[in-house]
Amino acid sequence: MHDVAKGAVLAPVEFEVEPTRYRHWKVSYDGAIARVAMDVDPAAPLRDGYELKLNSYDLGVDVELADIVRRMRFEHPEVRVVVLTSGNDRVFCAGANIHMLGSSTHAWKVNFCKFTNETRCEIEDATASSHQVWIAACNGTTAGGGYELAMACQEIYLQDDGNSAVSLPEVPLLGVLPGTGGLTRLVDKRKVRRDRADVFSTTAEGIRGKKAVQWGLVDAIFPRSKFDEKVLERAKGLIASASAGLPPGERKGVVLSPLAPEVGPTSRRYRHVSLEWDETTRVARLTMTGPSAADVALVERGGEAMRQACVDGSAALWSLQAWRELDDALLHLRVNHMQVGLVIVRAVPAQGCDLQQVLAHDAALAKARDHWFAREVLLHTGRVLRRLDNTSRSFFAFGDQGTAFGGCMLELALAADRFYMLDDADAPVKVALSELEEGALPMHNGRTRLQTRLIGAPAQLETLVGRRDPLDAEAADDAGLVTVRLDPIDWDDDTRIAMEERASLSPDALTGMEQNLRFPGPETPDSKIYARLSAWQNWIFIRPNATGPAGALTLYGRPERPQFDWQRV
Amino acid sequence: MHDVAKGAVLAPVEFEVEPTRYRHWKVSYDGAIARVAMDVDPAAPLRDGYELKLNSYDLGVDVELADIVRRMRFEHPEVRVVVLTSGNDRVFCAGANIHMLGSSTHAWKVNFCKFTNETRCEIEDATASSHQVWIAACNGTTAGGGYELAMACQEIYLQDDGNSAVSLPEVPLLGVLPGTGGLTRLVDKRKVRRDRADVFSTTAEGIRGKKAVQWGLVDAIFPRSKFDEKVLERAKGLIASASAGLPPGERKGVVLSPLAPEVGPTSRRYRHVSLEWDETTRVARLTMTGPSAADVALVERGGEAMRQACVDGSAALWSLQAWRELDDALLHLRVNHMQVGLVIVRAVPAQGCDLQQVLAHDAALAKARDHWFAREVLLHTGRVLRRLDNTSRSFFAFGDQGTAFGGCMLELALAADRFYMLDDADAPVKVALSELEEGALPMHNGRTRLQTRLIGAPAQLETLVGRRDPLDAEAADDAGLVTVRLDPIDWDDDTRIAMEERASLSPDALTGMEQNLRFPGPETPDSKIYARLSAWQNWIFIRPNATGPAGALTLYGRPERPQFDWQRV
Repeated sequence: MHDVAKGAVLAPVEFEVEPTRYRHWKVSYDGAIARVAMDVDPAAPLRDGYELKLNSYDLGVDVELADIVRRMRFEHPEVRVVVLTSGNDRVFCAGANIHMLGSSTHAWKVNFCKFTNETRCEIEDATASSHQVWIAACNGTTAGGGYELAMACQEIYLQDDGNSAVSLPEVPLLGVLPGTGGLTRLVDKRKVRRDRADVFSTTAEGIRGKKAVQWGLVDAIFPRSKFDEKVLERAKGLIASASAGLPPGERKGVVLSPLAPEVGPTSRRYRHVSLEWDETTRVARLTMTGPSAADVALVERGGEAMRQACVDGSAALWSLQAWRELDDALLHLRVNHMQVGLVIVRAVPAQGCDLQQVLAHDAALAKARDHWFAREVLLHTGRVLRRLDNTSRSFFAFGDQGTAFGGCMLELALAADRFYMLDDADAPVKVALSELEEGALPMHNGRTRLQTRLIGAPAQLETLVGRRDPLDAEAADDAGLVTVRLDPIDWDDDTRIAMEERASLSPDALTGMEQNLRFPGPETPDSKIYARLSAWQNWIFIRPNATGPAGALTLYGRPERPQFDWQRV
Repeated sequence: MHDVAKGAVLAPVEFEVEPTRYRHWKVSYDGAIARVAMDVDPAAPLRDGYELKLNSYDLGVDVELADIVRRMRFEHPEVRVVVLTSGNDRVFCAGANIHMLGSSTHAWKVNFCKFTNETRCEIEDATASSHQVWIAACNGTTAGGGYELAMACQEIYLQDDGNSAVSLPEVPLLGVLPGTGGLTRLVDKRKVRRDRADVFSTTAEGIRGKKAVQWGLVDAIFPRSKFDEKVLERAKGLIASASAGLPPGERKGVVLSPLAPEVGPTSRRYRHVSLEWDETTRVARLTMTGPSAADVALVERGGEAMRQACVDGSAALWSLQAWRELDDALLHLRVNHMQVGLVIVRAVPAQGCDLQQVLAHDAALAKARDHWFAREVLLHTGRVLRRLDNTSRSFFAFGDQGTAFGGCMLELALAADRFYMLDDADAPVKVALSELEEGALPMHNGRTRLQTRLIGAPAQLETLVGRRDPLDAEAADDAGLVTVRLDPIDWDDDTRIAMEERASLSPDALTGMEQNLRFPGPETPDSKIYARLSAWQNWIFIRPNATGPAGALTLYGRPERPQFDWQRV
């Protein structure tokens, strides 16, 4: 289907998994405390050709972890503290598997790093917003991606056994950067002093014991004999603070059911989302259908009714289902359809529904936010939209006949690189803003897509606060929402030319351009990771010093020494 | 000496120039208004092999522009508004010369883009801090780097002649990004809406006329017949606002004299700075000697006395001379000694001087800041230090016997990746903080190096405010200034091993790592350009889609169409 490992044609990667199929993790629950233990099966790599020794991971391991984090929030809302540890006696986690990295294509490495970092961000999002505080109990060697995973947790405890160290050995051993946000989390999140971070990141053996605490690399060390006891004590101690301000609602979880899309040779069709691709034009079409009248009615009954309906299976919740589908579609697009350069996004109303119902849906969901489940549903939507922001494909939203970008679905148009809107006096297409666009679905830079878009037009932004009337093409254009407004006579030709032009441009230049234009304004650690750090890593990943025949990553584990071109660039 | 163009061994690049030797610019003065006209001599490229047609530029053209900006501030302090325009009838500036880019090594392209962007930042610094407002009078085609140059100005006026357009055609024509901050300045500085920026940056022919104004790409358009008159009118109108808050002092300029270093086969020795390099170990030694008693006495006499002494030649001002020398040394290091991986930085006192005198110097200079000349001297020091922050070499500061890092010179240790300090009870080495470290010399992120370093230790930072006592190794370590403290027995071995280790690591991984660790915390448009945008550009510059045999940059101007690998990464 496509080459994910060098030269090989392999089956598509699947991103759906569920607990009974975990190969690499053991999850257990004890009231408000959950224990997630990494216990990687060396014999179960995602692709043939390498063994997952020493709790090292590949994309398959991280797909399971992402599933754990997500299900924890929906299925185990009683959990307040998650202890992330290892089932291996000596190794917490050795990081990404080097042989997997060494044998992967550039695109695979980039996609792998992006996905794993998104999982780290989900851990941080759960800690910050879901009253589920993740803590890392590093009961052994914590190296590279293993330490990056630990840094995604709010606190890090390290076993003090004269041997267990934390380390980022990528620069000295592999000639690449920690690929999952390590450098940024080190100085921006943990605020380790930059010169110490320099020493730490160039010291292959890492740092352990008191010095690790002193430098802020870990929060505490406990002797081996008391490690579990001390960690548990700390976990119990965190329950109270993690529970502060917890939204009400019966805390019984909602099971995430399989998405079960219909998969064809050029399409994936879910209940509310469909993705179709054309390998000749390299254009895909992504369509989301809005909530039905019944969906709106359910949300209007409030958070507890929504939860109950999901638990007893009497109804699926559009807002959870549709965005889970979009998430899965985006991941397939990224990893399994790498030739697609342009995605045409459309939002269409459910049968018999109009924009007003989408707005009613959003208003009801916003109102239900005090309920934990409604809140989780919204947090999830936000994460999916951020996945879209960070997807390296061009997105054009098409507001043509039959579409109705409203509220949360209008975010699709605002996340897109361009929004084309049909201006048809006879059958006006309309869009509308909802409550959900005023902060519920932030970008990685901490701002709304409207704030980001209208960074240069604060007065225009001001007029949109609280505005709920459906806007025709002209009004939407005046409001700063539309990139290109076309009348019916021009629509077909102009959009066809735009698609052809976009698909003809250098895919690399477009990736770099879009990453720069999508995120004007302030930066956060998250946005710095995706932009600054990822870009440097991408550069280093294709430099001969890393991945050439005598590069450090290529030769890792072999007797030969890497040969560097010493020019500093 | 080194390969700057593919495979060629060429003479080193010189960064010193002066007005009588300009080949590409015409500068004229009329009271408070200066006119800087680009008029590139096609037959005078810096390297053989390409012609500088249509006001396109190479490094040599930009070295002259950098000289113009700098001299304007020191030599023409009467100037309030600088009109940047073109001496070519139809072209304002066609941007960087494509044939130069196409025939350059990766390292050359990266260094070229970095230097030209530093020149753009100098223009912005002059506008923001020196009461010299630069405005762009685009009297013809303004493409690529030409538009980036215009965006460095506070305002942009475009000739409205049905033809002159502004454009960033890099993505559609060359498969690379605008390399001098264009995308960031577009959305972060000019705050052009991101979807419009997307259309603009993929439209090779650019945008002109009213739409250019409407989209915020330019500030005004004037018809060809009235262009000069309207621009002059606008320039005159800006004199008053540019003069607001102007520091006092006789406004007679100070000529920047040639640095005249002694150049040996492995050294450049200036009056206060020396640079020595060893091509075998790839280690360079950069030493700055502090101000003498006479230098301190001069500064203590105030800004006007400093200016007068420089004008009549009775004394050179250490603070101007030493940092100009360092600036030149850094540029030579970057472009002419690319194999050097590690720079050992030392600050030594002038004969008979101690730390107290350096502090007295800094205190007097800080006190003199109300005088325009003292202020320019400090702004210059800040720019040189920022050039150091953005130099892709490892810097270790060595506080060993004979050194005294004090005040502005301590910034060298704070800019370095590590600071090694000797702890010798018999002959204590000391360092000290001065007024100049409390905001006068900001990094590109808008913060001081102390704020950046102690981002995780606000209490420690607080104790350093106003602290002026000399700190021995232990006290400096306690204050968070020292990375590694060594006693005399360990010094030689430990520093030798540290140097060898550093010089053995992948130069690319180090560049990426240092760029991430040096700038924790907030970002500004400047820091985004150097980090996010440059990193993406570096990546794209070595992708086959741009620079491979069938890449877009390689094939520009040739009949063949580029062949892209369509995978989106």
